[in-house]
Amino acid sequence: MPTAKLLTDAEIATSPALQAIFDDIRTTRNSPFINNFWRALANHPDLLAHTWARVKSIMLDPAGPLDPLTRELIYIAVSTSNNCSYCIHSHTAAARARGLTDPQHAHFLQILALANQTNTLANALQIPIDPEFQVP
Amino acid sequence: MPTAKLLTDAEIATSPALQAIFDDIRTTRNSPFINNFWRALANHPDLLAHTWARVKSIMLDPAGPLDPLTRELIYIAVSTSNNCSYCIHSHTAAARARGLTDPQHAHFLQILALANQTNTLANALQIPIDPEFQVP
Amino acid sequence: MPTAKLLTDAEIATSPALQAIFDDIRTTRNSPFINNFWRALANHPDLLAHTWARVKSIMLDPAGPLDPLTRELIYIAVSTSNNCSYCIHSHTAAARARGLTDPQHAHFLQILALANQTNTLANALQIPIDPEFQVP
Amino acid sequence: MPTAKLLTDAEIATSPALQAIFDDIRTTRNSPFINNFWRALANHPDLLAHTWARVKSIMLDPAGPLDPLTRELIYIAVSTSNNCSYCIHSHTAAARARGLTDPQHAHFLQILALANQTNTLANALQIPIDPEFQVP
Amino acid sequence: MPTAKLLTDAEIATSPALQAIFDDIRTTRNSPFINNFWRALANHPDLLAHTWARVKSIMLDPAGPLDPLTRELIYIAVSTSNNCSYCIHSHTAAARARGLTDPQHAHFLQILALANQTNTLANALQIPIDPEFQVP
Amino acid sequence: MPTAKLLTDAEIATSPALQAIFDDIRTTRNSPFINNFWRALANHPDLLAHTWARVKSIMLDPAGPLDPLTRELIYIAVSTSNNCSYCIHSHTAAARARGLTDPQHAHFLQILALANQTNTLANALQIPIDPEFQVP
Repeated sequence: MPTAKLLTDAEIATSPALQAIFDDIRTTRNSPFINNFWRALANHPDLLAHTWARVKSIMLDPAGPLDPLTRELIYIAVSTSNNCSYCIHSHTAAARARGLTDPQHAHFLQILALANQTNTLANALQIPIDPEFQVP
Repeated sequence: MPTAKLLTDAEIATSPALQAIFDDIRTTRNSPFINNFWRALANHPDLLAHTWARVKSIMLDPAGPLDPLTRELIYIAVSTSNNCSYCIHSHTAAARARGLTDPQHAHFLQILALANQTNTLANALQIPIDPEFQVP
Repeated sequence: MPTAKLLTDAEIATSPALQAIFDDIRTTRNSPFINNFWRALANHPDLLAHTWARVKSIMLDPAGPLDPLTRELIYIAVSTSNNCSYCIHSHTAAARARGLTDPQHAHFLQILALANQTNTLANALQIPIDPEFQVP
Repeated sequence: MPTAKLLTDAEIATSPALQAIFDDIRTTRNSPFINNFWRALANHPDLLAHTWARVKSIMLDPAGPLDPLTRELIYIAVSTSNNCSYCIHSHTAAARARGLTDPQHAHFLQILALANQTNTLANALQIPIDPEFQVP
Repeated sequence: MPTAKLLTDAEIATSPALQAIFDDIRTTRNSPFINNFWRALANHPDLLAHTWARVKSIMLDPAGPLDPLTRELIYIAVSTSNNCSYCIHSHTAAARARGLTDPQHAHFLQILALANQTNTLANALQIPIDPEFQVP
Repeated sequence: MPTAKLLTDAEIATSPALQAIFDDIRTTRNSPFINNFWRALANHPDLLAHTWARVKSIMLDPAGPLDPLTRELIYIAVSTSNNCSYCIHSHTAAARARGLTDPQHAHFLQILALANQTNTLANALQIPIDPEFQVP
């Protein structure tokens, strides 16, 4: 259960500022569906406006140097580390919509598993950083 | 400072099993340099053998469905979440060796920052998962 | 579902030591309601006694140098980082009971989002600590 | 050692956009000192501009509903959970500059310790959320 | 809800490779029950094969130098830190099956609570490592 | 560098309360060496007194149901997850002092690696908890 209200379309419609953001989400994503994350943020219009602007610019800009599927995989990697259940679900769905195949998903999961495995070994052993890794 | 000894080449050479793995690391990566991570794991031959086999298969296999740079970015995303300083350094160096450009690095950092930002909001607000995200 | 039993009032009443702690919780908080956290800890009387003593002294002592609402915000910040769903819920409810306003909640969420954003940048870039931050 | 270059004042001066941000940091904080965090972000002008705008608006705006010291304590709580060494140092220094007293610091540390203690108990016991904590 | 399908026994039976692993799980654990973790991994046969081989070798090998209950307690400690709800449940059940008593569980929870408490203090205070802790 | 002063023996000697705790640490551990953790906590006498009392009771009590080496391994598992560098060092040293052998250390590291690996898979796949794991 959420710790804040999830605003309905009717509640959004009472605020032109909120309605404009919801309209932009629908137009940009070319879908009428608006997920609960935005309905919760709508309790705080500035937070909604700022967060949507960043998502639109970083994740949805077709001109960005990293391709859309790679962006989603990085997002899921972070979300899994933070164990953000909501984010794992929404971005796994987004990765599939952007063409994630089953072999790619398997490879991705193997990288997550390997990275967590070697991270804990490196931390447990407190391995000193090789000078060869220094930025030139 | 490490919590285990870092084995030197001379110490590795006393064990044919360890020497064979170090030879394979050098051949596979086409470089005489062996970083401290492997020198620490060498205290435990089974752990070294297993970990190297996984890294070779998952990160260095040219036939894997995710490209080498994407693999490194996912690795750095996990390592940053775990704040594994050693791993951040070694895999950032690897990503640069695999062609990471400055604009790609900037985009990557923006995704990390955005994902951590929205993760904490989703967790703080305990947002319920939309049924639309269900696997078909 | 819990990994331990949640003790009922009837089960608590069979132990004078547990009953005394539950009585003190009710008296101190001036409410008959006892939440599941204490009912689970009650499986281990020493753990219950110790934990309640610390909560009472640190969070509920009117003489502490940090005000009650600030204490709850710090608590939620930690709980969100640990993604402790139970703790996020209970301490968000406590913060509201201690007067958290909607603008304060929005400001708090913005600080959480910003801190996680800059933390991940500082970790990913492994920024060296400025000597100016040294304790005099 | 950092994974990116720390830009010097001379390097900043070659870019009017970067120089303008560094000027604003100095003016807003009323100090000539610019710490390494901003010098590292300056490799990516958009990231620098965005991050500074958020810090200025969220942490330094005198009109925000949470007072400056409370903001810093929330920031340190998050930074400690993420074990961001750089951020712990810079924000502990900032909290002291905003008037943190020794008894307040002790109280703050006790809250951090208690929250981490109860978080791990609640997670280990997987305690179900009481319906009483629901948002009205 | 899962982000991948949970394969049924009928679906497993269509693949001799998967069936062989499920047979080995049942034989090794001497039980017909196969929990959801393996049913989800079965979407990716290599991941299933590798993960089961490691669990069998590390957790179930009777000859390992750490006893089975100690192994499970270490596993739960990690799982609680990662807040892996699934893993906390499955390994707490396993620890009970391996003889965990109530006083041992209470002691274990106290160690978890204490370690998280002192970890956050050491991190918040950024305490320098004593040279006495160096590996000889 | 620490964010608080590390108190010297001369500074401790000016406070009978602090001196009594340092005397008890030395007597209980049968060693004149007092590590930096206690010297930092000594800035806040109540925090020092409380933390030492818990460590003494939970980690050093010979009558506890978990043996001293198992206690240390659980402690290191938590400290590695929190990446508390100080705690990893001090408790790895303590585990060695309590008899940790090289094969046990290797087995321990394998469990840490495996648990982090399966935790991230279970979280990424959001695997539903089997009803069989329910507490009776």
